[in-house]
Amino acid sequence: MPLGEHALLERLRRLVRSPPPWVTLGIGDDAAILEPDRGTLTVVSTDALVEDVHFRRSWMRPRAIGHKALAVALSDLAAMGAAPRASLLSLAMPAGFPVEDFDELLEGFAELASASSAALVGGNIARSPGPLVLDVTVVGSVRRRRWLSRAGAHEGDELFVTGSLGAAAAGLAMLDSGIDPSGLDERERECIGRYERPEPRLRMGLAIGRNRAATAAIDLSDGLADGARQLAAASHCGVVVEAGGVPAHPGARAWAQRKGTDLLAMVLSGGEDYELLFAVNPRRRKSFEAAAKKGGKLAVTRIGRLAGEPGAWLERDGRLEPLAEGFSH
Amino acid sequence: MPLGEHALLERLRRLVRSPPPWVTLGIGDDAAILEPDRGTLTVVSTDALVEDVHFRRSWMRPRAIGHKALAVALSDLAAMGAAPRASLLSLAMPAGFPVEDFDELLEGFAELASASSAALVGGNIARSPGPLVLDVTVVGSVRRRRWLSRAGAHEGDELFVTGSLGAAAAGLAMLDSGIDPSGLDERERECIGRYERPEPRLRMGLAIGRNRAATAAIDLSDGLADGARQLAAASHCGVVVEAGGVPAHPGARAWAQRKGTDLLAMVLSGGEDYELLFAVNPRRRKSFEAAAKKGGKLAVTRIGRLAGEPGAWLERDGRLEPLAEGFSH
Repeated sequence: MPLGEHALLERLRRLVRSPPPWVTLGIGDDAAILEPDRGTLTVVSTDALVEDVHFRRSWMRPRAIGHKALAVALSDLAAMGAAPRASLLSLAMPAGFPVEDFDELLEGFAELASASSAALVGGNIARSPGPLVLDVTVVGSVRRRRWLSRAGAHEGDELFVTGSLGAAAAGLAMLDSGIDPSGLDERERECIGRYERPEPRLRMGLAIGRNRAATAAIDLSDGLADGARQLAAASHCGVVVEAGGVPAHPGARAWAQRKGTDLLAMVLSGGEDYELLFAVNPRRRKSFEAAAKKGGKLAVTRIGRLAGEPGAWLERDGRLEPLAEGFSH
Repeated sequence: MPLGEHALLERLRRLVRSPPPWVTLGIGDDAAILEPDRGTLTVVSTDALVEDVHFRRSWMRPRAIGHKALAVALSDLAAMGAAPRASLLSLAMPAGFPVEDFDELLEGFAELASASSAALVGGNIARSPGPLVLDVTVVGSVRRRRWLSRAGAHEGDELFVTGSLGAAAAGLAMLDSGIDPSGLDERERECIGRYERPEPRLRMGLAIGRNRAATAAIDLSDGLADGARQLAAASHCGVVVEAGGVPAHPGARAWAQRKGTDLLAMVLSGGEDYELLFAVNPRRRKSFEAAAKKGGKLAVTRIGRLAGEPGAWLERDGRLEPLAEGFSH
């Protein structure tokens, strides 16, 4: 049975147990009130997941949708070197959206919110005559002079990426193909998990922001090619991605082999990996790598360099070619 | 010609001229960075407008849609006694949404953002396979112990409302009827303006929050009956609305007469007036009224009282009857 907005908000409220001490007034009033983190700056970002653009309900469980909506917003905080403090969720829901799915979606959101200290403090629920839309705003804090931005890289800086790439794109292709997951190997199945439940690289972003070893950073929502291009453009530089250095996810590699598709294209233009891309002055590389060790088990890999003249290139077998375009949802 | 997300974000960026000094990093990076207002708390709220639920594109110009999306979010800050600092806009846009309409919508948003110091610092643009969806998050600040909430009213407190009611509901009815506006009188036409371009009562909220004369506050997004009920419930009280005291907008009155409809029903259950409702301890009434004079030319009118036992009533001709339900979009 469909519930009204007030009843749904009440369910939402019940999910928010024991907010952190900096939440002066949580969900349920006209607005929420947060105690600022002393001596820090406030970081805010907003992101959206739209049904049939960013996800399909027939592919993804509501729990994963809720997780992912928050994860992609938190990934923006990670790219700034910020620590999460709070989150707000605005839902536009189709008529007849099952209340069990609503609960499950919120649970997926709330689990990640709790695990990443991004307490849910604001909610809005509207009816949608079309798709399910999740809009998430995150609030974080960052110490002065410890934040990262896309702008700040210089010619000669080296480009590093966290983790491995292509997994989310492979996962999406697997879901799209309708393949029975039991026919996939373990590394391939991991790709579906990476597509559905990306993990924002918050520890890594914080560690790198604090030690000031990176000159610029961005998260890879629309693929490596797009991210590298945007970081370079914001820094008024060009960029060269070195094909040989780019770490492909083993599951993406296996899937590309199975399908006979181009692994490098998937790694460069496949979106939604939500890894972080950093520019690092070569003289600070050791300091950067030391800080990166504090970012958890996540590896960082050198994958290219910033160039003087504007533009974006791929270096393959010693030759430069234009870098592919990014991923479009 | 449809533009890509990057191109649209670039247009958005260009609209944001001269951000206020507290914006350390504005729109265009993974997140925005704000300098907190010293000694204050951070206030956040999110709200959405969904096409064909909250507005129709055939009725409302894009400029009004942009204005209204921000106005309804700012109204939540007003109800907390907070001053706006920043805003974020997340748009889900149907394919083929004209770029001229996009620009006009943003201009409507940016004008109000500038007029109310709610600098646009974050934007997200996604494709929508269905309606146009605008999600707005606002960030404000409020001094410690100077914020208002829905909870805090007591039995015996008096209920005050700003301005006059029913105008937005009448304006919506006028648009819905397809009537030619030239056949309306001036007071009636004002109703359409109130529906399309609500003015958040920010000065009033600030003035009342600062002088601490109100025990509770809420903004009237879903009508007086709904607002009174919610304020009372959050305060663990009941509420009595006194029918004779409720100020009806003259245009709503004229429209009700023209149509032979029930003015009181429109005033009680008609949504989207975005006036503020306050609860005031009778011993502080003079102090409240003095502060309210600082809220601009806006009148405040006593319209009822808080009761001890839970519930919501309408007092008409000395008799109590159950209060109507609120407005549902």
